[in-house]
Amino acid sequence: MDEQIEKYFKYTSPDEALERILKNSRLSPRVIDVSVHESLGYVLAEDIVSTIPIPIDNIAHFDGYAVRSSDTLKASTINPLRLKVVGRIDSIREHNLDIKDGETVYVVTGAKIPKNADAVIPVERVRLLGEYIEILEPVKRGEHVTFRGADIDGGEIIQKKGDIVRPQTIKYLLDTGRYRVKVYDKPRVALIGIGDELTSNIEEANGKKLETSSIMVSYYVKEFGGVPIRFEAVPDSPSQIIKTVKNSLRENDICVTIGGVSLGVRDLCWTTLSKLPESMPIARGLKVQPGRATSVVLIDGKPVIMLPGHIQSTISGTINILVPLISCMQGLPIKDLFPRVRAEIVEDLTVREYISFTRIRFVKLAKNRDGFIAKPILGDSSMIGPLISCNGFIKIPEKIEKISRGSKLDVYLLSWSELLYLFSKYNEWTGPS
Amino acid sequence: MDEQIEKYFKYTSPDEALERILKNSRLSPRVIDVSVHESLGYVLAEDIVSTIPIPIDNIAHFDGYAVRSSDTLKASTINPLRLKVVGRIDSIREHNLDIKDGETVYVVTGAKIPKNADAVIPVERVRLLGEYIEILEPVKRGEHVTFRGADIDGGEIIQKKGDIVRPQTIKYLLDTGRYRVKVYDKPRVALIGIGDELTSNIEEANGKKLETSSIMVSYYVKEFGGVPIRFEAVPDSPSQIIKTVKNSLRENDICVTIGGVSLGVRDLCWTTLSKLPESMPIARGLKVQPGRATSVVLIDGKPVIMLPGHIQSTISGTINILVPLISCMQGLPIKDLFPRVRAEIVEDLTVREYISFTRIRFVKLAKNRDGFIAKPILGDSSMIGPLISCNGFIKIPEKIEKISRGSKLDVYLLSWSELLYLFSKYNEWTGPS
Repeated sequence: MDEQIEKYFKYTSPDEALERILKNSRLSPRVIDVSVHESLGYVLAEDIVSTIPIPIDNIAHFDGYAVRSSDTLKASTINPLRLKVVGRIDSIREHNLDIKDGETVYVVTGAKIPKNADAVIPVERVRLLGEYIEILEPVKRGEHVTFRGADIDGGEIIQKKGDIVRPQTIKYLLDTGRYRVKVYDKPRVALIGIGDELTSNIEEANGKKLETSSIMVSYYVKEFGGVPIRFEAVPDSPSQIIKTVKNSLRENDICVTIGGVSLGVRDLCWTTLSKLPESMPIARGLKVQPGRATSVVLIDGKPVIMLPGHIQSTISGTINILVPLISCMQGLPIKDLFPRVRAEIVEDLTVREYISFTRIRFVKLAKNRDGFIAKPILGDSSMIGPLISCNGFIKIPEKIEKISRGSKLDVYLLSWSELLYLFSKYNEWTGPS
Repeated sequence: MDEQIEKYFKYTSPDEALERILKNSRLSPRVIDVSVHESLGYVLAEDIVSTIPIPIDNIAHFDGYAVRSSDTLKASTINPLRLKVVGRIDSIREHNLDIKDGETVYVVTGAKIPKNADAVIPVERVRLLGEYIEILEPVKRGEHVTFRGADIDGGEIIQKKGDIVRPQTIKYLLDTGRYRVKVYDKPRVALIGIGDELTSNIEEANGKKLETSSIMVSYYVKEFGGVPIRFEAVPDSPSQIIKTVKNSLRENDICVTIGGVSLGVRDLCWTTLSKLPESMPIARGLKVQPGRATSVVLIDGKPVIMLPGHIQSTISGTINILVPLISCMQGLPIKDLFPRVRAEIVEDLTVREYISFTRIRFVKLAKNRDGFIAKPILGDSSMIGPLISCNGFIKIPEKIEKISRGSKLDVYLLSWSELLYLFSKYNEWTGPS
C-alpha cells in the first residue's frame, strides 16, 4: 500500500519545479567556439567589441570625383568650375594620392579618397571635358564621403553577451576578420517514447503503433534552440527504461521520456526512475492541466522530464518545463518564451476543474474588423484534432472559473512555425496592445 | 551618349516590378513530394483529408475499468457497486471482448474498450477485492472514453493547401500512416557577389575584401524559406558576369547579383545583362530609397535581381523584391511578409529626399511603460552600424516629408531571428494594436 501511495501525485507549480531544477542540477549555459558562418540564431557568450574603426579610411560612397568642398563654393551653371583630373582610383586599394587647388581625382565606390579631399561628386553630376571636369553647383563637406570611423568607431561594444546572432552580425564579424565567435551551445535533448504498444520502425508498424510523439516534440526542441536526439521506443519495462534513460544522459543535457508516467500498472517511469540511488526527485506531477502527470527527477544532476503521452499533455509539459530549460541552457530568459497575440475570446469558457492549477486551453484564431478573435477548441487531452485546428493556447490562472465572451487575453503561439502559419493566413501580424 | 543614357535609372515601384516579374516569368510554385519527416515549415500543396476516424474504436482515456454507465446509476459510498472483472486488456490491441450486466474489464490507456462498455473508471477510483471491484459513485456515459471519430471524423479537411506544416501536422500524418506529403518546393536562389575588389576565399583575403554580402543575404533567403546557393565572387568583367549568371540559372530559380549595378564605370551588371538577346528588362531602378539602384531582368524567363552593394541598399532590395518572390514560389502571399510591432517614434524624422519613393529607415526598438518606442538610426546606405543597432525598419510612403515625434507606426522586423532577438530582450511580444 505504501508502494501505491508513493505513486500518487504531489503537484508542484511549474515555476517551483523549474526553480528546483536550476538550483539542484548541473544545468548551465555552456560556452563554445563556433565558426561565424554557423552562428546564426546562437546566443553570444561574449561582448563583440569593435577593434577597428569602420571605415578605416575616408571613402567614396559613389563612383565620382573626389574634391575639396572649399574649392566648389562658387560653382554654378553660370559660373561652372573646372577641375583637373590628376588621377584615377579605379579599384579599392591603398594609395597616397593627394589633391591640390583646382584638382580632382576619379574614385570608385568604396575607395579611399585622396588626402585633402572631403567630398565626392557622383559621375552623373559632372561634365567630362578631356582632362577636366565641370561642376555646376557647390558641394558640401562630407557629401558622398564616409569618414573614418563614421560607421562604427573603434572600441565600441557592438553586440552584447546574451544577444542573438543575426545575419547582419555575421557580416560584421566576417568583415572585420573574425571567423570564430563564442556562443552558448545548443542543449542536447534526448527524446524517448515509452510503451509496449510502440515501435520506432515503420516496417514493423504491423500490430504496433508508430511512436510519433518524440518526432513532434523534436520539432519544438529544434524551434526553441535545442538539438533533439531521438531514441528508439522503449517498452514498459523498468530495466529497459533505466538503461535507455541512463544511456541517453551520457551524451545529452536533458532526457525526456514520453508516456508511462500516470498511475496505471504500466506507468513505470516515475516509480522506476525516482527510486534510483543517483536520482533526486523534483516534482511528481505539475499544477497544470492538461499535463498534470508531468514529473521530473535529476539523475546524476541532469534533468529527466517525464511527459505524459496524451498529446495535449505532452505539449503542456513541453511548454511548461522543457522549453524554459532549453532557453536557460542558451543563456536566454526562461519566462514568456512564446510569441503571442492579443485576442478577444468569442465564447464563454468555463473551467471548474483543477481550480488551483494553471489551465491550458487551445484556441483557434481568426480576425474580425477589430483584430484577432479566439475560439476555444475543446476536447480531451488525447485528442490531436484541437491541436491541428488551433493556433495557440491561453493560460487560465488558478482560481479563475470562467472567462467571459468579449474578454481580451493573450494567446501564446506554440512555436515559430505556428507564427509563420498564422502570419501567412492573415497576411499581417497584430499582437497584444 | 546613347550608351550613357541607357544606363540611367528609370525607377519602377516595387509592386509594379513584382507584377511584371510574375506576369512574364516562368516563376510559379513547384509541387514536390517530400518525406513527412522533412516537411516542417513547408507549405502544403494538397488538402489533407482525414481518411479514417480518430480514434478508430471507442478507447479508454485512462488505465481503469470499462463499465456500462447504466449499471452504476445507484452506486454510492453507502451502497457500493460490485462488478466482476471478467477480462484484462493489458495492451493496445484488437479484441472482441464484451461485458454483460455486473461485469467489467480492466483496460489500459489507449486500448479499445469492450463492446457495450461506455465509460472507464480510473484505477485510483475503485477498490480491488479479489475478482471484483467496488465503485462508490455513478459514472457518466462517455466518462474517460473517447468514442470512435470523436477526435477527427473521416472525410474532414484537416489542413488546407497553402497551410504551413507544423509539428502537430507531422504527428497527425504519421499517425494516420502517411509518410509522404505534397508541398511547394523551396525556391533555389543563386547569390553572386560582384566586384574586382572581392574574393570568396579567406586565405586570399590579402589585398582583397572578403565577399560577405552574399553570406548575409543567404540567411535572409533561408529564413524566408528559400535555399541559398552561394557562388564565388565575380570580378567586374562582362563576360564573367554573363557566364556566372547564366550558369547559375541552369539549376536555380532566381539569380541575385550583389554590387556593380549603379552608374559608375565598373557598374556592369545592368548594361551587360539587360542587353542579352534572351533578356527581358523588368526594372532599371526601384522607387525605394535606399535600394533605388535595384534592377531586374528576366533571362530565359527566370528573374535576375541585381542588388546594390551598399549594405542598407542590399537589404532594401532583398526586402522589396527577393523575399516576396521567395514567398510566391512557396505558394504564400507576397505582401506584408515581415513580422511587425507597433511603436511610438521618439524623434521627429524628416525625409525630404526621393519624395516620390518609399523610404526605408532603420529603427532601434526599446520599451517604455506604454509599449514599444522606436528611435531612427540614421547613416548612409553603406553603413553597417545602423543595421547592427536596429531591430527593424519603417516604411515612409511617398509624399510624406516628416514623421512627428509621438506618432505610432509599424516597425517591420527584418527576419525571424530578428524577432527572436527582440523577444529575448524584452521577454515579451507586443505587436501593433
